[in-house]
Amino acid sequence: MHLSERIISMPSSPMRKLAPFADAAKQQGKKIYHLNIGQPDIATPENFMLAVKNFNEKVLAYSSSQGMPQLIDAIIKYYKKYDMHFEKDEVLITNGGSEALLFTLQAIGDYNDEIIIPEPFYPNYNGFANMAGIKVIPITTKAEFGFHLPEREVIEQKITNKTRAILLSNPGNPTGVVYTKEEIMLLADIAKKHDLFIIADEVYREFVYSDSGYTSFGNIKDIEDRVIMIDSVSKRFSACGARIGAILSKNKELIAQILKFCQSRLCCPTLEQIGATELFNVSDKYFEEVINEYRKRRDVVYKGLQEIPGIICQEPKGAFYVIAKLPIEDAEDFVKWLLTDFHLDNETIMLTPAKGFYATPNSGLDEVRIAYILNEDDLKQAMHILKVALDTYPKKK
Amino acid sequence: MHLSERIISMPSSPMRKLAPFADAAKQQGKKIYHLNIGQPDIATPENFMLAVKNFNEKVLAYSSSQGMPQLIDAIIKYYKKYDMHFEKDEVLITNGGSEALLFTLQAIGDYNDEIIIPEPFYPNYNGFANMAGIKVIPITTKAEFGFHLPEREVIEQKITNKTRAILLSNPGNPTGVVYTKEEIMLLADIAKKHDLFIIADEVYREFVYSDSGYTSFGNIKDIEDRVIMIDSVSKRFSACGARIGAILSKNKELIAQILKFCQSRLCCPTLEQIGATELFNVSDKYFEEVINEYRKRRDVVYKGLQEIPGIICQEPKGAFYVIAKLPIEDAEDFVKWLLTDFHLDNETIMLTPAKGFYATPNSGLDEVRIAYILNEDDLKQAMHILKVALDTYPKKK
Repeated sequence: MHLSERIISMPSSPMRKLAPFADAAKQQGKKIYHLNIGQPDIATPENFMLAVKNFNEKVLAYSSSQGMPQLIDAIIKYYKKYDMHFEKDEVLITNGGSEALLFTLQAIGDYNDEIIIPEPFYPNYNGFANMAGIKVIPITTKAEFGFHLPEREVIEQKITNKTRAILLSNPGNPTGVVYTKEEIMLLADIAKKHDLFIIADEVYREFVYSDSGYTSFGNIKDIEDRVIMIDSVSKRFSACGARIGAILSKNKELIAQILKFCQSRLCCPTLEQIGATELFNVSDKYFEEVINEYRKRRDVVYKGLQEIPGIICQEPKGAFYVIAKLPIEDAEDFVKWLLTDFHLDNETIMLTPAKGFYATPNSGLDEVRIAYILNEDDLKQAMHILKVALDTYPKKK
Repeated sequence: MHLSERIISMPSSPMRKLAPFADAAKQQGKKIYHLNIGQPDIATPENFMLAVKNFNEKVLAYSSSQGMPQLIDAIIKYYKKYDMHFEKDEVLITNGGSEALLFTLQAIGDYNDEIIIPEPFYPNYNGFANMAGIKVIPITTKAEFGFHLPEREVIEQKITNKTRAILLSNPGNPTGVVYTKEEIMLLADIAKKHDLFIIADEVYREFVYSDSGYTSFGNIKDIEDRVIMIDSVSKRFSACGARIGAILSKNKELIAQILKFCQSRLCCPTLEQIGATELFNVSDKYFEEVINEYRKRRDVVYKGLQEIPGIICQEPKGAFYVIAKLPIEDAEDFVKWLLTDFHLDNETIMLTPAKGFYATPNSGLDEVRIAYILNEDDLKQAMHILKVALDTYPKKK
């Protein structure tokens, strides 16, 4: 049977493809510290389930294709705190940030159009681009420079008459980079000059650990008609299983067009929207505590990495990831070996080989992504295990 | 700003585009009998919310990309009742039947490939094909013949080297047709001969009101590797707001490939999957009652239509829709007029003009879709209003 090129050419998830080896290790009784997925252990605010449990309609009916009005209002209110002012017809609720990305790509590009993304990047960007038939053109960034952007010329070289948008996550998954104000303004200027959209994936907006601040594309008045904000409750409120995201843009025509996609899939789930509405009402104290917790974890991981000879990485400034260059040839082999051939007192760690975060072939082969989503003690132990494992690994450089 | 061809060319939902006129009519104090949307008034089985309310995990975490194991097991068990035997790696849980359709189209076709669909059809088929860049090639069916399929030659004429699949809903939305065993076997034979997939949207499987039985594509052993079953809990359990659907196929390679799409959007919502699992445990008595209710409603609507001079329609045999040809020129004008210029004792009805269910231009202009999702008394009154309205309408043929 004939299957489509787009699906055949799509790579498997780099976060999930080594899962069978982890399962086998667990069956052998090994304890695994999972640093490979972005599933936080932070409790979801209780008001989510309280709101859901209060639902007492007899019929679980379709809701509005755009999203439930109370959730849209809650999101608008949340954005006001950041001095971003969206109106009701500038917001669409989606099935997670995932659907927000897919709909956005389908709205701005046709088959063989191009989008520019700094690599390493969240690999599902590739997945959605594949579905949409759009080509990903990477701008390579490096561990040595903390994954900051190259200069203007390098970026502009990538722009063709097929380029439709620049897509990036800030703070960055998988790198932990927080782009400087200068970088954001540079991209804004390039977008304006070349008539491109900026697809700003800011789902980790709150998770910034440096004092040098955070610049959102949503605050640049001059390009507001070309900024498409991708959002999600998953990480912000530790509610990954809710699958509630959003698209926001001051470009009303774009939102009106994407609403047609929303109408074709009818609506997002009712209960999850009811719960998500309450998430936006959590206190600022909730964020303070959560960010504090992640900052401590970031410190543990970064300190642990610094103590291992031969590792290259700069201090990550945001989100809850870091990409580290290891003193090895083949990170995928190393990660597999950690699961199949190594243990320290019957414990091991699981990391994500970074290869899958690059669009340029043979890039990031010696890099791994570490998600610091465990408590401090577990992270300390995990870093210790990494150190011992790198000492033991037979194929060390 | 440049938007994609695929989104610009996508029509708005025919079910939703007259909504502003309905809102205006309501503001004038008119009561509207809504026959225009497929949102049943039947209560969702209580065990859905009971299961959701029992959720007490601290973290609302990602679930499996494929779908939660207990839901997959429940669906497999449900299918066994119909003598269809799926294994765990032959099922994917999706965000409604909507995502099941989108992923399936993206998996079987590339840009400019073609799928064949009998028209009038569920207009979101068009939406998903648009998103995927796939062309819809219609086979026209007629009210006069109860929307049954034309003969083999007419169907085979539509097949080119770009054709990838035949997609159809059975029982049919919007027509209420239930295809005969001969029709199903004919399509199976054509699919085999021309190496096509059959995308079988059988979400209304239980809603069959004739004694002549129902033939599922899932029971044709000979073509099991080319049948892709689209399913959803929305109509079967009156749980439209849950947005839980499924793709099932004995073609394991296809399922393994589509799993990559599922992984890219991470998972479906956790709570809705927990609730949906329990839906599949409702008793057969639930279905008997619901089907009995819909049969009575079908009878009221069909009897009402028969009593109106000049209406052409055959008795609908399944789902909860009927398409009727009215003695008018322009159904869209008529539907709008019903909302803006007509009332009977301050009451009116809302219907869906059928034009949007056709891919062939200028088809179905004098037809409307009626969804019989109100109680019998309301439906009787609605049919009475339709009769009076047609008598009154100034542009009657």
